[in-house]
Formats: sequence, C-alpha cells, structure tokens
Amino acid sequence: MSILVVGSVAYDTVETPFGKAERVLGGSASFFSVAASFFAPVSLVGVVGRDFGEAQLQAFHGRDINLAGLERMDGETFHWQGRYSYDLNARETVCTELNVFEFFEPKIPAQYRRSSHVFLGNIDPVLQRKVLEQVERPRVVACDTMNFWITGKPEELRKTLERVDILLINDAEARQLSGEWNIVKAARAIRAMGPRTLVLKKGEHGVLMFSDHGSFAAPAYPLEDVFDPTGAGDTFAGGFVGYLASTGGEGEDALRRAVIMGSTLASFCVEAFSLDRLLRLRRSEVDDRFRLFKRLTHFEAI
Amino acid sequence: MSILVVGSVAYDTVETPFGKAERVLGGSASFFSVAASFFAPVSLVGVVGRDFGEAQLQAFHGRDINLAGLERMDGETFHWQGRYSYDLNARETVCTELNVFEFFEPKIPAQYRRSSHVFLGNIDPVLQRKVLEQVERPRVVACDTMNFWITGKPEELRKTLERVDILLINDAEARQLSGEWNIVKAARAIRAMGPRTLVLKKGEHGVLMFSDHGSFAAPAYPLEDVFDPTGAGDTFAGGFVGYLASTGGEGEDALRRAVIMGSTLASFCVEAFSLDRLLRLRRSEVDDRFRLFKRLTHFEAI
Repeated sequence: MSILVVGSVAYDTVETPFGKAERVLGGSASFFSVAASFFAPVSLVGVVGRDFGEAQLQAFHGRDINLAGLERMDGETFHWQGRYSYDLNARETVCTELNVFEFFEPKIPAQYRRSSHVFLGNIDPVLQRKVLEQVERPRVVACDTMNFWITGKPEELRKTLERVDILLINDAEARQLSGEWNIVKAARAIRAMGPRTLVLKKGEHGVLMFSDHGSFAAPAYPLEDVFDPTGAGDTFAGGFVGYLASTGGEGEDALRRAVIMGSTLASFCVEAFSLDRLLRLRRSEVDDRFRLFKRLTHFEAI
Repeated sequence: MSILVVGSVAYDTVETPFGKAERVLGGSASFFSVAASFFAPVSLVGVVGRDFGEAQLQAFHGRDINLAGLERMDGETFHWQGRYSYDLNARETVCTELNVFEFFEPKIPAQYRRSSHVFLGNIDPVLQRKVLEQVERPRVVACDTMNFWITGKPEELRKTLERVDILLINDAEARQLSGEWNIVKAARAIRAMGPRTLVLKKGEHGVLMFSDHGSFAAPAYPLEDVFDPTGAGDTFAGGFVGYLASTGGEGEDALRRAVIMGSTLASFCVEAFSLDRLLRLRRSEVDDRFRLFKRLTHFEAI
C-alpha cells in the first residue's frame, strides 16, 4: 500500500498567545505527509518557489516520503499568516500570499500513478479531479475542501465528490456544503453526494464519523498545553489515511481505529509550532497515546 | 439509596425554530427528578406559587418522587422565558420572573434528611450550604452552579464547593470559575477547590469528566431532531446521580456509566418541549440507547 497526497507546501507565520513563529514549514501536504509516513510510504505532489531550500526539505528526509512530485517553480513559496486568540478553535487569517501555488497544476509522476490511497488536499476541486484522472484505480480516495470552494465552485466540487470515498471536513463546512444545520441531516445529505464515509473534524471537540455502519464519535485528547493548532486537521488526515493504508482494510473497525490514529497524531501536532513535534515524535509515543484514547473513552456495558 | 434534590420548579416559555411552548413545566428540580426517578427514589425540595396546580403535579405522579418538600407559597411560580436560534447551543433569555423563588428558603423535611445522594441544583450557594446543614452525612453531594453565582458570590460559592463531591457545570462556567482557558488546567484548579469529580457538560459536544482516575470523554448522542435543549443539563444530572444512587458505587466504572446514563436521558429530553419526552419514556428505551452509546464510541485496540 502507498499514499499519494496532493496539497500545499507552504511557509506559515503564526501568532498564538504563547509565541510567534515566522516563515516556518507549513501547508496541508507537509503535515499530511509527515503524519502518514509513520504508517506507509507517501508520495507528495506540490509546488514550492525558489526560496524553498534544503533546510526546509530536511523535514521530509529520513522518512518514507517521495518528493519526486514536489515541483519547483520560479517565484516565491505559498505563504500563510494567521493569528489565534486564547480560544484556539477560532483563528484569523492575517494574509494569504498564494505565490507559485496560484499556478499549481498537479502533475503526477508515472511512479506514483498506482498509489493505493489518494489524499486530495484542500485545493481547487477542478485540480482535485485532474489528479484523479492521472491515477489508476486507487482503492481509497480521501478528500478535503473548504468554504472557499463550497461557495466559490459548488458545481465543480459536486463533480469531484462523486468520485470521493472519504470526505474529511469540519462541522461548519459540512453545514455549509449541505445547507443543513443539524449535523446528522448534513451527514446524510453529503453522503448522498458521493462519499460513503464522512469524517467531521470538530477541533477540541473531537471527530464524528458517518459511514455505512452508522456513526462513530471520538473525543480530542484533552491536552494541558495546546500551543498551535495549525495543521492539526491535515495531521489528522495523515494519521487517518496512513493508518488505513497500513492495514489495507476499509471496514468499520479499520475506519474507527484510523479516526483514533488521526486524533492521536493531531494531538501531538498542536503541542508545538509547525511540524516541530511531529518531527521528533517516536512511533512508541504514538502507540502509547492511542492506548490512552482507549482509557479516555472506555466504559463498561450495563 | 435515595436522592434529595433542591432546585427550581418553574413555568418555561420556550421558542425554538421549530415551535413555541407557553408556560410549560420546567425548572432544574423538575427535569432532574423525573430523570433520576428512573433509577432511585427522589425527594424534591422546591417552591411553587398558587398558580401551580394539580395538572402540573401530574408529571411527578406515578413515579418514585416524594413531593413533601415542595412548598407552596402565596404568589406566582418562577417563570423563565427563552429563545433558541438554529444554533441550539446558544440561547437568549427573554425574561426571568423569579416570583416566589426569590424568597425560597429550602426546608428539608425530616424524612429526607438521611438521603444517600444530594443534588444541589443551581441556586444561591448560601442556600446550597443551608441544605447541607440540614442533611445527615450523605454519601455523595453533587452540585450545579452558573455564571451568576460565579461572579456574584465567589466567596460563598467557594465555601460550598469545599463540601461538594461532584460538580456538574458547563465548559464556559469551568473557565470562568477557574480563570483558566485550557480545560485541563481549569479542571485541576476546580478539583483543588473541593470536588473530587468534575463533570463538564458541553451540549452537543458531549461531556468531559475529571476524577481521581484521570479523564473520561463521552459524546452527545447524534440526534437528527433536536427540538428543544431546555433542561438537558438538569436531565443529564438526574440520570447521572440517579444511576450512581442505583448502583451504590462511587468508583470510576460507576461514574463513567453514570455519565453515559446522564447523556442517554438528556438525549431524550431534547426530543420534545418541556418534560414531554421524559414523561413517556420507557426504561427499555433508556437501556437500548445506552447500548447505542457503546456502539457509537467503541473501537478495537491496536
């Protein structure tokens, strides 16, 4: 099993009540790849500018992450700047400089086309479909999107969703996409658009998954020090898809453990700026925290 | 085992996007008592006015709810009026007419003084302590409070909390009471004030419990039709304390099942106005939904 991820590789400038990080490594494909690489080989498709150097690439080295699809273009790398208040669930985007990302046309290297699992990061749904046209019958297609595409390109997004197995979005996006306030109704409407499995990310309130087997609820791990939530959603997706790829299963048991694995990885991500915590994370720590999730949620039947 | 509850018995006027109910039965002690009575005998201490008639009392009849402590005073019954938008987590209080409740002085009938479990509903912390002074060594004292008392009578509340075993409040109240934004830090600070167990109610996002054994997270049951959230918190408390009283246990296993039982009862409460759903609820439905909570949260270890 192997994973193809298409998404952004970026510089992030992040301000939280606890500190500031300038032009550190970010982007959906970066967080996703490092998280997923704990479980299965990852092939990254993205674009960076000439200002993206060897130091930044270090994050991906020594891991099973293939960078043959990381294009380098004339110009500057995508730069996102955001600010969080004490309520770390709400963030303010200070500025978004798309730079080379504006001209991104995903080109899938031949060696990637047989990936078993594909993750379509949050990019133009037209480009997401172009990725699918270049791959050969993946077993699982997982996908992210955001309000910008939900309102800006609803028709194109619908066409993409028809080809998606698992959609990972947050609860506000689910309400917007479905036009339903109630989350159970929203889930039913979205699953009717194509994705058999819908994973709703609710930040500190955890995750709700809707699949053929009904619903599954998982909490976020209660952390004493949440330092920077940037990338938590993409890290969740990396742990989720990575775990699925590692098992080769797509049944309910595998999906549920994948949700917990995603939540586990995300809980580490937020402990530091950028990918700092993920990059020094050991697999044994991952497994330990997975077990803590079991203790956190277990109760005896009556 | 038997339960003593002190709190409000009220008329509620509630407007939701789905309809309006005028002067229907409400109040913390009403919801609590009916929920708890599924599990153990309940003795209710509260006050109503002359306008509170036999029809309203019907709700409590045919259940193990002792009304010897429900005082009747000259004047009108407490009346609360509220309005919900589609976001059922946020409500607006239109008006609060305390009426006879303003002069409420809880008097515990002799026959109640040996209750094993006491629930101090959300009233003045001075009155909560007066209740404790009238009872004989209860096994478990559980307590609710709100922002009004947290900011209005912080010293008195602190004195009450020293005598409380289990505090049940919402996450915003926990942040306010502790002065900590982070919920894990807030929980530690509050547990240092007295309550060994803290149960944080997060509405549609479920419950977090902090006890000597660490933390426990339970989701809310994902409902397709949430009709009226009024009373859900008190119903949760009734199911929680009721279940604890029925087992006689206070260990972690009992506490966790009590959280799920509280969540189960609350999930029925919100399906209709006032106590309507609780009053036609059968015990078999309670047990069925408890089992659904197990299915909702279960995952296999890795």
